[in-house]
Amino acid sequence: MLSIAIIGYGNIGKAALQAVLAAPDMTLAGIVRRSTQNIPEELKPYKVVSSISELSKVDVALLCTPTRQVPTYARQMLQLGISTVDSFDIHTKILDLRQELMPIAKQNNAVSVISAGWDPGSDSVVRCLLEAIAPKGITYTNFGPGRSMGHSVAVRAIDGVEDALSMTIPLGTGIHRRMVYVKVKPGYDFKTIEQQILQDDYFRHDETHVMQVESVDALNDVGHGVNLVRKGVSGATHNQRFEFNMSINNPALTGQVMVACARATRHLTPGAYTMIEIPPVALLPGNTEDNISHLV
Amino acid sequence: MLSIAIIGYGNIGKAALQAVLAAPDMTLAGIVRRSTQNIPEELKPYKVVSSISELSKVDVALLCTPTRQVPTYARQMLQLGISTVDSFDIHTKILDLRQELMPIAKQNNAVSVISAGWDPGSDSVVRCLLEAIAPKGITYTNFGPGRSMGHSVAVRAIDGVEDALSMTIPLGTGIHRRMVYVKVKPGYDFKTIEQQILQDDYFRHDETHVMQVESVDALNDVGHGVNLVRKGVSGATHNQRFEFNMSINNPALTGQVMVACARATRHLTPGAYTMIEIPPVALLPGNTEDNISHLV
Repeated sequence: MLSIAIIGYGNIGKAALQAVLAAPDMTLAGIVRRSTQNIPEELKPYKVVSSISELSKVDVALLCTPTRQVPTYARQMLQLGISTVDSFDIHTKILDLRQELMPIAKQNNAVSVISAGWDPGSDSVVRCLLEAIAPKGITYTNFGPGRSMGHSVAVRAIDGVEDALSMTIPLGTGIHRRMVYVKVKPGYDFKTIEQQILQDDYFRHDETHVMQVESVDALNDVGHGVNLVRKGVSGATHNQRFEFNMSINNPALTGQVMVACARATRHLTPGAYTMIEIPPVALLPGNTEDNISHLV
Repeated sequence: MLSIAIIGYGNIGKAALQAVLAAPDMTLAGIVRRSTQNIPEELKPYKVVSSISELSKVDVALLCTPTRQVPTYARQMLQLGISTVDSFDIHTKILDLRQELMPIAKQNNAVSVISAGWDPGSDSVVRCLLEAIAPKGITYTNFGPGRSMGHSVAVRAIDGVEDALSMTIPLGTGIHRRMVYVKVKPGYDFKTIEQQILQDDYFRHDETHVMQVESVDALNDVGHGVNLVRKGVSGATHNQRFEFNMSINNPALTGQVMVACARATRHLTPGAYTMIEIPPVALLPGNTEDNISHLV
C-alpha cells in the first residue's frame, strides 16, 4: 500500500481525498492544513496536522495548495525524501519547475510528478500522442464551458467588485469568449467596472461580455469541458482527423489525476517528470500484464 | 539518425516507408521483400533486398508482414540484435507475444515494441489514460465505418465467392453492423452464399447485411474510424464523460504509429513493450524539454 499525505484542503484537496479513499492500493497518512482548528466533519476520521513531520511514513505528498505555493512545498517534501505530485498550472513555467525540482528529487531519492491535472496533465498526454501519430498539422485545445480561475481573480482585483466569475466559452480553433458575472459593491458604478474589465490584459484580446448579477455564488458550478482537435498528416497522407472531448467535474478530475500520478512514482527512477514522460500503464493499479490484457 | 529497415511491402509497408521518409531523425536502410524481382517504380531509389543480412547497420526493423508472421520475424530480428516494431493485432495473443519476445529482446540487448498500430496501439493508450483518470466506469470502442480485414477474409473463404468486402459500421456501445459486399463466381447462387455468411461465426452474433456487387474493387477505400467513449467516476464524482474520435486512412496511421514507436526504442531498456508501457514523449523527435514546453 502506498501511504499518501494531502497538503491543503480546498477544492482539489477534497477531491484528492475522495480519490485516495477510492484507490485500492493506497492508505491515507493524513491531511496537512495551515490550521488544525475547525476541522470539517468529514475529516474527523482522519489525521489532520499542521506539519508533515507529524505524520509517520509518507510515500507521496499530494500538493493541493494554490499553484504559486507549489514550488516551495515541493522542495520541502522532496528534501524529506517524500515524493510529490502537484497540479501546477502556469504553462509557461512548467519547464522551470521541472528543472528546479529535478536535482532535489534525485539527491533525495524521490520522484516529483508536476503539472498533473487535466490541462496541463491528461490533455498534454493526448496532445503528445496525436502529434506522434500525425506529426504535421495543428492541434487546437478548446476549453469550456467552465470557470477560469485566473480570469475570475483578475476581475475580483478591480476596485468596487465584491465577487466575480469569468466563464470560458469555446468558439473553436482555440478562440474563447469570456462571460463575466460581477457582483458590484454598494456605491460603485457597474459601467465603470465593465470598462476596466474590457481594457484589462486578461480580457482585451478576447470577445468579452460583462453582466451584473445579484449573486455570483448562485452561478457556481465546477463543471468544465475540453474539445481538443487535431487535423494532420501521417506519413504522406493528409486529412487525418482526431478529436478528444471531455465534460467533467473539474476538481474531481484533477484530484483523480494526481492520485494516478502518485501511483506512478513507484515505477519511476528519482527525478522530476511531467505526465508525458510517464508510461500510461504506470498510472493504473494492478499488475502490468493484467492491464495489458484488458486495455491493449 | 536511426537506421530503419522495412520488412514487407504491402499496404502497411508502403505507409511505413512514407512515414520513415518524412521523419527528421531517421534514414532508410532498405526494404526486405520475399522477391527482389519486379521492384515497383517508387522503390528504385532505395535498397531492396531479400534478407536483412544484406543491409548494413539496421537499428530498427518495422515488421510490415501479415500479422501471423510477426512472431517469426520478430524472433529472427531480435536474435540479430535488431530492435523491432510490429502492429500485431490479434488482441487475445498480445500478452503471449510479449512474454515470448521479452527474454529474446533482453538477451540480445534489443527492444521490441509490439501491437503498435491504432487498435491495438494508440487507442490502447487512450483507453489506459481514461481508466486512470476515471477508474470506475465503462469504455466502449466503436469502430468504423471501415473495412474489417478478418471478416473480409472469412467471406472470401466461402465457396463461390470471387471477392468480398466486409465493412464495420458502429452502432454505439461497442455493437457493430456488418455490411458485406460479395462478388459471386459464375455458376454460384448468391442466396446460398448469403446464408453461409449469416451462419458463419464471424457474423452470426452481429446484425449482418449481404449484398451482391459487380466489383468489390470499386468499393475499395482504406478510410476508417473510431469513436471511443468512457463514462465513469473520478474519486467519488460520477458522470465524468470522455470521448475520442478519429477519421483516418488506416494503413497511413498504422505506418506512422510504427515509426513513432521505432523512435521510442532508443529511450527504452531492452525488453518487449506494448504502447501503454512507453512514455508518450518518447514517441516524438526532438528533445524532451522542447516537447514539454510546447505540449504540456
